Amino acid sequence: MEITLADDKPGIKFMPGEEDVALHPGLKEVYLDNTKISYIDGDKGRLYYRGYSIESLAENSTFEEVVFLLIHGHLPSRYELFTLKDTLRNERELPDRVLMILKSFPRETTRIEILRTIISALALFDPDDYDYSKEANIRKGLRIIAKIPTIMAYSHRIKSNLPIIEPDLELSHSANFYYMVTGNKPDKDIEAAFDKALVLQSEHGSNASSFAARVTVSTLSDIYSAVVSAIGALRGPLHGGANERVILMLKEIGEPERAEEFIMEKLNKHERVMGFGHRVYKTRDPRADIYEQMATYWCGKTGNQKLMEISKIVCDVMARERKLSPNVDFFSATFAFAIGLPILLFTPLFAASRSAGWVAQTLEQMDNNTMIRPLMRYMGDIDRKYRPIDDR
Amino acid sequence: MEITLADDKPGIKFMPGEEDVALHPGLKEVYLDNTKISYIDGDKGRLYYRGYSIESLAENSTFEEVVFLLIHGHLPSRYELFTLKDTLRNERELPDRVLMILKSFPRETTRIEILRTIISALALFDPDDYDYSKEANIRKGLRIIAKIPTIMAYSHRIKSNLPIIEPDLELSHSANFYYMVTGNKPDKDIEAAFDKALVLQSEHGSNASSFAARVTVSTLSDIYSAVVSAIGALRGPLHGGANERVILMLKEIGEPERAEEFIMEKLNKHERVMGFGHRVYKTRDPRADIYEQMATYWCGKTGNQKLMEISKIVCDVMARERKLSPNVDFFSATFAFAIGLPILLFTPLFAASRSAGWVAQTLEQMDNNTMIRPLMRYMGDIDRKYRPIDDR
Repeated sequence: MEITLADDKPGIKFMPGEEDVALHPGLKEVYLDNTKISYIDGDKGRLYYRGYSIESLAENSTFEEVVFLLIHGHLPSRYELFTLKDTLRNERELPDRVLMILKSFPRETTRIEILRTIISALALFDPDDYDYSKEANIRKGLRIIAKIPTIMAYSHRIKSNLPIIEPDLELSHSANFYYMVTGNKPDKDIEAAFDKALVLQSEHGSNASSFAARVTVSTLSDIYSAVVSAIGALRGPLHGGANERVILMLKEIGEPERAEEFIMEKLNKHERVMGFGHRVYKTRDPRADIYEQMATYWCGKTGNQKLMEISKIVCDVMARERKLSPNVDFFSATFAFAIGLPILLFTPLFAASRSAGWVAQTLEQMDNNTMIRPLMRYMGDIDRKYRPIDDR
Repeated sequence: MEITLADDKPGIKFMPGEEDVALHPGLKEVYLDNTKISYIDGDKGRLYYRGYSIESLAENSTFEEVVFLLIHGHLPSRYELFTLKDTLRNERELPDRVLMILKSFPRETTRIEILRTIISALALFDPDDYDYSKEANIRKGLRIIAKIPTIMAYSHRIKSNLPIIEPDLELSHSANFYYMVTGNKPDKDIEAAFDKALVLQSEHGSNASSFAARVTVSTLSDIYSAVVSAIGALRGPLHGGANERVILMLKEIGEPERAEEFIMEKLNKHERVMGFGHRVYKTRDPRADIYEQMATYWCGKTGNQKLMEISKIVCDVMARERKLSPNVDFFSATFAFAIGLPILLFTPLFAASRSAGWVAQTLEQMDNNTMIRPLMRYMGDIDRKYRPIDDR
């Protein structure tokens, strides 16, 4: 096995023995490990959290219950649920110094960057900072889940020149979240819808953000680092940023009669239409179906029928031309817009929901850890000769 | 392919069709993709950056030159190096509001958490925040590399109740770094040693932190998010925390005559001895050899011969009992201690060095991107029946 000498000349070579190795860009077909958290049946378009179908949880459960389920593996007893709700409620506030940091940020900043920074800062103020027991990790995880809505709501209101609204301990996680963002306490209908949205997106297998959390914690780092990595991954338009781009597209279309032409033009120009297709779901995304029902209801109730009409035409064109179904980003965008959530909060809302899955997956990785580092195939020169700067 | 009904009873099942899939915990044998940045020949114990052997770079190069090489793929001309040095020098300062954040942290915090938070915060103040061109990404990457020493030095001195020392624009990257930490301008000998340490650890294939950066940016997120994820991964004792634990162990041993017994006891109790073995290097880690020479020289020069004696006995015992060679963490710890670097700065020093590789790998991932998300094999119940809370 001889190494080729290149003497600083250009020219690409594979290393001996590596010519034929199989590459796995994106790790698309690679199984990392076992999980007991969620199961996606891509062929049948089904999703389960801890064995419960997403439809049954969306119908019956609350976000707090799902947080418990994802972390502990079973639905909570009345007492367990009471305790969890109590913890989440009492952890909503930010420490004063963290609030000061939040207020010091430039107003034009994107919310997800603020969220990433504040979660990172919260680690420094966590009372269990140096306790790495499983119990402490669960406490830290719940603090993160409890505080994300507060961070989002505060940064939104500061940016919008509105006074911040402190958490209301009488309200549920989702009702308080809505209240801190909008300043209005939601009626039961809005609360239930908002809660359902949080349930629907709280976990989804080894998506890019949860995988980033696993990679980070696989060095035996801490749960804050894991969630910070996940938030960073969520920032990307291929992951958490997609629903923002969906609603911007729908608003750009503006009128139902323009929708078909708009999409055809995009397709002809080989541009990406956001909100369609999924690497895992070969048929339909079950969450998209639930969101479609919610979007239909809320667009009707809030006078956004035109938005719904446009959405449906876009879906028809994509089905006809590309045989693609809408994914979770598509109708979640229409829904979130219809219930009055500011567009710039779409990705942070996703973060608030998914935080439950990040925490559960981080804990699972910690329980059964191997440091995650794949190989890369080197494809370049070797043994180039170092030349002094004046000889280059 | 029928889905098994579990009706909320315990009992673990694999999903149909997944019983026989191969799992890759840690992705140990999985090749992600091609790279042109570094090559590790684990069998021969060799490491190359962009085709140049680590020995030739440690001997001839400076950290600034290696930064250019890793990012651009070739050694810089005199003009290119001048420009790069100028940029790095002028980007050392932190914006006032970020400095204020840094000063607001509790003193007992670990440096790596501060570094993670401050790099995240810097994104909010980056003048190119919304520019995602390759040129802008390189500018952001250089800002990150330039500022890490400042963040480290400031947080160290604040914690130690010492006044912060502003960057000295007359000094090289490594000399200024040393100066900001210690308050003393280094002589040529210390500067060269410090610079060599930065060169030695600036890149190392798809290690866990660089891989965390790739996963994060693979959603088309930004370079700050990528580096923040990398820092989070580096925080873990299996990755960046290892050299801290080496020096703590050597200090615990205390006397050369205790060393053999101490290690034997650890081995008999099946405890991990930090600083030995490497997943990739089957023989020796070439960086460990260079660090060993540096450690020997500096332990002699600074009267730490006893530390070196202990180190060598530990190596002998590990070679005899386990056939393991020291890895980069082992002698880098001895070296860093001997030149007077505070132990709590070991991991942040590693971050300062490795930031060059993180930036280069993030840019390479951006140039040839596929979103990274592997599969997980579900191993649990399915179609559990949702039961109302009082029936549980």
